[in-house]
Amino acid sequence: MKLVRFGGGRIGVLEDRLIHDATISIGLEPEAWPPVGMVQLIKDFNAVRPKLEGLTKSLGVPLEQTTLETPILWPNKVIAYPVNYVEHGQERNVTLRADRDGFFLKASSSLSGPQDPIMLPDLPGREIHHECELAIVIGRTARHVSTAEALDFVFGYSCLIDVTVRGKEDRVMRKSYDSFCPIGPALVTADEVGDPSALDLKLWVNDELRQHGNTRDLILDVANMISMASSVATLYPGDIIASGTPAGVGPIRSGDRITIEIERVGRMTLSVEQGVGGDNLAIRKDATR
Amino acid sequence: MKLVRFGGGRIGVLEDRLIHDATISIGLEPEAWPPVGMVQLIKDFNAVRPKLEGLTKSLGVPLEQTTLETPILWPNKVIAYPVNYVEHGQERNVTLRADRDGFFLKASSSLSGPQDPIMLPDLPGREIHHECELAIVIGRTARHVSTAEALDFVFGYSCLIDVTVRGKEDRVMRKSYDSFCPIGPALVTADEVGDPSALDLKLWVNDELRQHGNTRDLILDVANMISMASSVATLYPGDIIASGTPAGVGPIRSGDRITIEIERVGRMTLSVEQGVGGDNLAIRKDATR
Repeated sequence: MKLVRFGGGRIGVLEDRLIHDATISIGLEPEAWPPVGMVQLIKDFNAVRPKLEGLTKSLGVPLEQTTLETPILWPNKVIAYPVNYVEHGQERNVTLRADRDGFFLKASSSLSGPQDPIMLPDLPGREIHHECELAIVIGRTARHVSTAEALDFVFGYSCLIDVTVRGKEDRVMRKSYDSFCPIGPALVTADEVGDPSALDLKLWVNDELRQHGNTRDLILDVANMISMASSVATLYPGDIIASGTPAGVGPIRSGDRITIEIERVGRMTLSVEQGVGGDNLAIRKDATR
Repeated sequence: MKLVRFGGGRIGVLEDRLIHDATISIGLEPEAWPPVGMVQLIKDFNAVRPKLEGLTKSLGVPLEQTTLETPILWPNKVIAYPVNYVEHGQERNVTLRADRDGFFLKASSSLSGPQDPIMLPDLPGREIHHECELAIVIGRTARHVSTAEALDFVFGYSCLIDVTVRGKEDRVMRKSYDSFCPIGPALVTADEVGDPSALDLKLWVNDELRQHGNTRDLILDVANMISMASSVATLYPGDIIASGTPAGVGPIRSGDRITIEIERVGRMTLSVEQGVGGDNLAIRKDATR
């Protein structure tokens, strides 16, 4: 099943390019704040699933007639693994590795949707890179989970672009600008994706293929990422894990169109726009470090 | 005003060691998941404040007859500034500084309450340190806020202990263990605290004073921390900023009692207990790095 948020905080099931609105049947209030509706739905998914499946027999709204929004807006956390493909470590010339360094976090406020632009902060002289990643979405509360049982805790998957300002400041800050974590176009449940250990992932800037990797080359695979994260922190339904990027990262610029595609997970194209501000005492607009 | 969570997710006003239960009057459902009740209350605070003030004329529950819980459980994010007092940088022998490195994040799942134990992961040979910090709680959505206006976005303050496993792995992981971010005992509104630029903060391990600092020695003061964070990310009501620790950090052990006190903000004493697990491929139980 493919779940989407659309049309002002509504939740729906996407099938054959039609969205079947589930908002009323799951008792969601689209305007509620904070926006935790999808997180609640993920927690209650097994109970609600038959209802959602029934919806797909009704008329749907064509995908083109509405706007897709960030599927998950207010998770407990967005975990991210650094260098998790050997060749990406080589291109960045770092010794850092996911299996030796562990994970960091991106701000939940950096999450954006499949039709939102990536807004570049105004940091002349700084490169801002695309990183093509598989997003793992947690389905059940997980703590001290072994690799053998880890996949049972996956709700589903999504495409994720880990946008990153290059530099020497803390990477959490450099990766946490608003709109620096587009996910989508849908959350695809784990049963539709099947084995996550050999998924092709690709990213194009405009029409040029820049990244082409496969999850078989992950240093920490999906099960190991969940096991490691859960050895430290309780994972909650809706938590997102950005799994690291294969080689081929590079700068994006205002006017670019970025397309990400992951096998059996989806494909989305985002625009890149120049925003204002974003410099501060650490990241200077008037100096590169 | 002092706001607390207590007794299984209820919210109350603390005055003269009496808790006045606000749960019904603010329409809170204590069992709702995810637990975003305090985040909602912070957003709606100006509208709800007269109602809360009225409650204090009624009978209250003596503090001793209930259990205080984590005041905020599911914020959008917990921002943390690294070395933000010069002398702490010297004792750690690092060149890192908040004004040059920017901020990182702690997992929201590491938040715990004033009567919860700090649970130590089972990592023999690793030091686990106390860091005594002022927590700033955001009251209004903030983006691109100047230092001149930054204090207008503060909801209040709390005591915060930034518990940290020492080591070379990503500090986000080392600081994100469950129970590694006790806050409390209450959220104290900004009007009760007044000027945050000269607050004394102290931390004792058992009865020994280990840390004694003052916010006048912050490298980035409260306004600068908010301004920097908001230059990168939208700050939402309920967001927490851990402002960095003064000198005197050191190891904590099972059986210790840790007391933190911040002038006009509060005082709380937490126990330290040995937990199980917590090692993984990066942080090894059987090796120190």
